[in-house]
Amino acid sequence: MILRLGQIELYVSDLDQSEKFYVDTLGFIKVNRTDSSLYLRATDEFDTHTLVLTESEDISLANFGLRVSSEDYLDELQALHKEMGIETEMVEGVHPGRGRTLRVAEPSGHPVEFYHSMQQIDVGEGRPGVEKLPMRNTHIFNGIPPVRIDHMNLRVESVDEAWKYWERIGFSISEYVQDGDEKFAAWTRAKTSTHDVALVKQEETALHHIAYIVDGVSAVVRTADLLADAGYRDSVEYGPGRHGVSNAFFLYIRDPDGHRIEIYSGDYNRDQDLPPIGWTKEDYDAKGRLWWGPAVPDAFFETTPVNKDWIGSKVKN
Amino acid sequence: MILRLGQIELYVSDLDQSEKFYVDTLGFIKVNRTDSSLYLRATDEFDTHTLVLTESEDISLANFGLRVSSEDYLDELQALHKEMGIETEMVEGVHPGRGRTLRVAEPSGHPVEFYHSMQQIDVGEGRPGVEKLPMRNTHIFNGIPPVRIDHMNLRVESVDEAWKYWERIGFSISEYVQDGDEKFAAWTRAKTSTHDVALVKQEETALHHIAYIVDGVSAVVRTADLLADAGYRDSVEYGPGRHGVSNAFFLYIRDPDGHRIEIYSGDYNRDQDLPPIGWTKEDYDAKGRLWWGPAVPDAFFETTPVNKDWIGSKVKN
Amino acid sequence: MILRLGQIELYVSDLDQSEKFYVDTLGFIKVNRTDSSLYLRATDEFDTHTLVLTESEDISLANFGLRVSSEDYLDELQALHKEMGIETEMVEGVHPGRGRTLRVAEPSGHPVEFYHSMQQIDVGEGRPGVEKLPMRNTHIFNGIPPVRIDHMNLRVESVDEAWKYWERIGFSISEYVQDGDEKFAAWTRAKTSTHDVALVKQEETALHHIAYIVDGVSAVVRTADLLADAGYRDSVEYGPGRHGVSNAFFLYIRDPDGHRIEIYSGDYNRDQDLPPIGWTKEDYDAKGRLWWGPAVPDAFFETTPVNKDWIGSKVKN
Amino acid sequence: MILRLGQIELYVSDLDQSEKFYVDTLGFIKVNRTDSSLYLRATDEFDTHTLVLTESEDISLANFGLRVSSEDYLDELQALHKEMGIETEMVEGVHPGRGRTLRVAEPSGHPVEFYHSMQQIDVGEGRPGVEKLPMRNTHIFNGIPPVRIDHMNLRVESVDEAWKYWERIGFSISEYVQDGDEKFAAWTRAKTSTHDVALVKQEETALHHIAYIVDGVSAVVRTADLLADAGYRDSVEYGPGRHGVSNAFFLYIRDPDGHRIEIYSGDYNRDQDLPPIGWTKEDYDAKGRLWWGPAVPDAFFETTPVNKDWIGSKVKN
Repeated sequence: MILRLGQIELYVSDLDQSEKFYVDTLGFIKVNRTDSSLYLRATDEFDTHTLVLTESEDISLANFGLRVSSEDYLDELQALHKEMGIETEMVEGVHPGRGRTLRVAEPSGHPVEFYHSMQQIDVGEGRPGVEKLPMRNTHIFNGIPPVRIDHMNLRVESVDEAWKYWERIGFSISEYVQDGDEKFAAWTRAKTSTHDVALVKQEETALHHIAYIVDGVSAVVRTADLLADAGYRDSVEYGPGRHGVSNAFFLYIRDPDGHRIEIYSGDYNRDQDLPPIGWTKEDYDAKGRLWWGPAVPDAFFETTPVNKDWIGSKVKN
Repeated sequence: MILRLGQIELYVSDLDQSEKFYVDTLGFIKVNRTDSSLYLRATDEFDTHTLVLTESEDISLANFGLRVSSEDYLDELQALHKEMGIETEMVEGVHPGRGRTLRVAEPSGHPVEFYHSMQQIDVGEGRPGVEKLPMRNTHIFNGIPPVRIDHMNLRVESVDEAWKYWERIGFSISEYVQDGDEKFAAWTRAKTSTHDVALVKQEETALHHIAYIVDGVSAVVRTADLLADAGYRDSVEYGPGRHGVSNAFFLYIRDPDGHRIEIYSGDYNRDQDLPPIGWTKEDYDAKGRLWWGPAVPDAFFETTPVNKDWIGSKVKN
Repeated sequence: MILRLGQIELYVSDLDQSEKFYVDTLGFIKVNRTDSSLYLRATDEFDTHTLVLTESEDISLANFGLRVSSEDYLDELQALHKEMGIETEMVEGVHPGRGRTLRVAEPSGHPVEFYHSMQQIDVGEGRPGVEKLPMRNTHIFNGIPPVRIDHMNLRVESVDEAWKYWERIGFSISEYVQDGDEKFAAWTRAKTSTHDVALVKQEETALHHIAYIVDGVSAVVRTADLLADAGYRDSVEYGPGRHGVSNAFFLYIRDPDGHRIEIYSGDYNRDQDLPPIGWTKEDYDAKGRLWWGPAVPDAFFETTPVNKDWIGSKVKN
Repeated sequence: MILRLGQIELYVSDLDQSEKFYVDTLGFIKVNRTDSSLYLRATDEFDTHTLVLTESEDISLANFGLRVSSEDYLDELQALHKEMGIETEMVEGVHPGRGRTLRVAEPSGHPVEFYHSMQQIDVGEGRPGVEKLPMRNTHIFNGIPPVRIDHMNLRVESVDEAWKYWERIGFSISEYVQDGDEKFAAWTRAKTSTHDVALVKQEETALHHIAYIVDGVSAVVRTADLLADAGYRDSVEYGPGRHGVSNAFFLYIRDPDGHRIEIYSGDYNRDQDLPPIGWTKEDYDAKGRLWWGPAVPDAFFETTPVNKDWIGSKVKN
């Protein structure tokens, strides 16, 4: 089975600029930096990294990775994709610490990776007891480090079409917005939280934002403080406010390349077999998108393009 | 000497409506309700009430009260106002629990009261130890009750003119905005916090907002949650965000009559003899008004008129 | 598959006394009260109730329930228990809103229920959008209501023996303490959090505590404030402090019958296929039990007996 | 008039060791380090430093300083001390940035300094708006930096005798404990908070603790986390818990030399002319000392000796 969103790779223009923003300011933990990539994780994560920033001229979503429960399941997934007529590629050595990786473009064109084997941080060596839990290193954290990776918000031409794929690979919907005959949006997940992958209708395939959880309402607010104090006031794009859908207390920030990150707290867990919560488009526009908060600024509708150089990609933007 | 802002009276259209908003929803402590007035206080206050809502057809700022250090000082203040050529009135029995009260209209037209004697809540009787501290009643609080009254934000035609008065009665400036030859704004105080009375330039004498402190960043956010949950989403007018001036983390809300209340946390203390912090108008527009946060909505420029039926008032709005 | 701990039933001596503590003070949501039982839930829960308090002369753990993914899986579980030689009982109508229920005593003697069908709260009717999310009712909450049920801490004679059972029904271990040849403790789970069921060695089968999550560090502290303010100071038994194992920021409280509840925040998620984190008994005694915090009081070693009138029970305490 | 506690000097054994604890771990801002002293301040302070750690073989309270409203008032204070028959010394250049300083030993033997002129941090230069408020530098803070200095807790042989002195120099009592004919303790202040100087009965003149305010309940807890994570678990001496007197949510920590620091949040403001809140010794023992929290450990009764080499000192411990 698919367990969760485990990794995101973004193409960025300048690693120094990215390191200053993500590591020196926000407080992401710097795991490694190679000539081309910066490897980062949040504080309560056991995978050695969850965010990869890779220098490229093509500023876009490089891909995102979903962790699966076993190596065998990777083979099952490859077979399932073949059944669906989707081109696949099984590769090794994609990133340090990663095992076999199945690559596909999902039908909307988003670049997806599946993997099982992933290097874990050391939880047992060193001073007795001390390094067992990564989060017990608050004395060496800086900024307001995120706690863990949570989800992607993707833009797709047809949510109903996209949902067919995600349902086929085992996702369930936590909440959705029905607009007449079609879904306007669906929050889909492999884990019990509200979403790993949100699907929202837009003319072009794109990434709207990635999301990391922080430690409660005050950490969301202190992230905005931190950015403004460090001279990144323009990076504070939208919020804070409360979403109706998902219940998240959100802040949307933009990195130096314009990639949008939701820094949030407060969504809920719900068993995956339970029926999704449906909103009409009217309800959603009135209360679902925004339970309370400031009016949406125009910039919030800008999106990040997706990697066009990907196996089977048909994205042309 | 003048100690601090101690009380505010607002004219409202309907006490039931106000009680639902202030008491049942926000969690102000209801001290008393008479035919005409609702008496409220916050959780960490010892004065029996700090906010009075009085039913009137004239929705406006009725007056605000400054507590002074002694009865003798009231007489000194009366003499000082006579010296300044300001009409005064010494009255008794203004509100339950209040002693002698000196009434004046300050030169811009704002209705001000000075008083010393004020009924205190019982801090020693009853169950041993239990009622000694009012804030140790969290089991009977509801909503997100404010912690204590803090300040008024007044609009005046000339800040420099207004400041002459406040300086004369012993206030100091914590921060100010200089716009060419004149002050655009000044945050003035009798206590060591950033302000009891803020003065901001506007064509007409008016009240912009009153302010209560809440318990930290998360209480500010949960106040917005509370209002939206209770069906008062439109009362969440502006914020949350961070002011540069005063360092406050703010949320501006509107009561059912449109009176604006700043719910905030995080300003600082500074000795009153130290020189004020000055901002140019450019700095203020760039960083002072808003360190970070959403764009100011138009409604935020609306103000509450002030009581015209007040001794010596020349306000005509 | 088994999804999670979903329900706990405790025998209590007096429903009025329990309602005053759990509902009027702590802020559990009162769903229903019958002649014999009080049905409660936390704020971010969709099951109509997760805690049942039933009046009985035998103050003990009545049972706890684990929700499974389907009705078919209930039948599979019954077959599996028969294979293990464990007596089973399939019953209906146990509690309002509950479907078929499989009852067993696990080998240590703890009374367990498995069920799939469970009545959900209404998430779509009423005022548009308003009741969709249960947590968006902060205006009617009181106290510091817990957010959701999390785990049980059970005392068993042999952790290794007990673990054989829990492993067989699909649980995994997040952390454990090795004491020479045997495990002193194991934190086992069906979901990705650190535990649904903790197993700790003790001479007699017993319940040490049940646990509910609250909203962050400050809600843990405010729960202690709330109890002391309401006259329940003696209910604040141990903490707050930080556990090394699980990383939880904890407060242990006792209800009027002595049942212990952990009110906590801050444990982590980790994929279930990853190897458990092991502590030696020395490490655990030095840092694992208590990362920092006050010395353990004697009362903390008291436990709640388990229901002896249960199918197949061999418990004699 | 006396404004507030403004500065504390402690004798320590090793500046490197102190810097690691106060600066590298807790996050005090390092202002300067000379051969003999380390100068520190908290985040929301405008005085260039409030804590001085000076290397000495005599680990003790070197002295503490109270800021007064003017240079003239220093002279008045000197005259007043002469009237009281207390030896005085007026010195200059005590610490960098400090003006004239009046030194006395108060009758119990505590070394006190009074001063008016104190160097302020720069609030107006540099990047426009950016350095105006010192607290808007969260991007360069580490640890959980304290917000501001608050009070000293002194041990004196007779509280009634000590109070005569503090009353004479203009302090008022916020709360006190009456034990038969004498006061067991008195919380006295120059500002409107609950105390600048607490006086508690003990056989020997000593310092019990100094206190810094942090940003709310969660910062208190995160300070304990921080210390334990950094390997200073034994420095977490007592708490967290809630005091009845003063309402403070407290954590007591010990520095590497054993000096005790209260890290706290949540006391209240109250006008100085209002009558103090009295506790009987019985009430205080039951609820006042500890509203809720862990039992007091023996180490908590240890104290720091006071400087014997001080003008007029009669302390012999």
